[in-house]
Amino acid sequence: MSDLLRFEDFHVGRKFDCGPYHVTKEEIVEFAAEFDPQPHHLDEEAAKSSMLGGLAASGWHVCAIAMRMLADTLILKIANRGGVGSREGRWMKPVRPGDTLRMEIEVVEARASNSRPDVGFVTFDCRIYNAREQVALVSMTPIIGKRSAP
Amino acid sequence: MSDLLRFEDFHVGRKFDCGPYHVTKEEIVEFAAEFDPQPHHLDEEAAKSSMLGGLAASGWHVCAIAMRMLADTLILKIANRGGVGSREGRWMKPVRPGDTLRMEIEVVEARASNSRPDVGFVTFDCRIYNAREQVALVSMTPIIGKRSAP
Repeated sequence: MSDLLRFEDFHVGRKFDCGPYHVTKEEIVEFAAEFDPQPHHLDEEAAKSSMLGGLAASGWHVCAIAMRMLADTLILKIANRGGVGSREGRWMKPVRPGDTLRMEIEVVEARASNSRPDVGFVTFDCRIYNAREQVALVSMTPIIGKRSAP
Repeated sequence: MSDLLRFEDFHVGRKFDCGPYHVTKEEIVEFAAEFDPQPHHLDEEAAKSSMLGGLAASGWHVCAIAMRMLADTLILKIANRGGVGSREGRWMKPVRPGDTLRMEIEVVEARASNSRPDVGFVTFDCRIYNAREQVALVSMTPIIGKRSAP
């Protein structure tokens, strides 16, 4: 387990690349049916006349996809103990069926725990792009084990 | 459509109750397998030795459940045009198999759009409780149509 990335490895400014992740119409509709059953996430015809201008993934689906990209690329290589939350989620552009997403992670904060000497909190800003532009920003703050616990 | 709740109806401090939502082990594992495949969300035995002390839902799953509770109770009664994001997500306590959740929404900000005279941005703080205590806070900012568009 000693080759896992630990708290000390996450200095502010360090970047990681994640993805690609291919988004299908089927999963957009499936997620929406389970968690966000609004017409612009469920139905192509209804979506055309919506502000989104066509079928688009739920913002919470985009957050879940960000977690999946993090998981596939990085999280199982980290001494990760859980997460405390997300300090920001910005859904900037629609995520469409057929989009291939990639994600750039940047460490924006790293803070040792006051109450638990063996862990620290690292905040990642995760910028998600389709082929043309940035579509979302999802912040995450995992709790990460230290290399040298006292 | 005139009986939909509109931007003008969401004054700061107004509250709404959502739920209940019953969380099953099956859906915790299913969500985790798709989006957040970490041992403490997937496997009961592995979870016991984790910081969470037992199987618990992914934080992103809790966010998706919050959206579902909002959808079931309120969103289809709102002139909702989409969402711009979440300014905060706090995963405070584990959400366990068998938990029955409820959610209290409070309007914490309502701001007319500068660029689009027909809509405004309303920020909801959604406090999620199990039978004993608050387990999460999920903020959401839907874009809501105005009653009297110019």
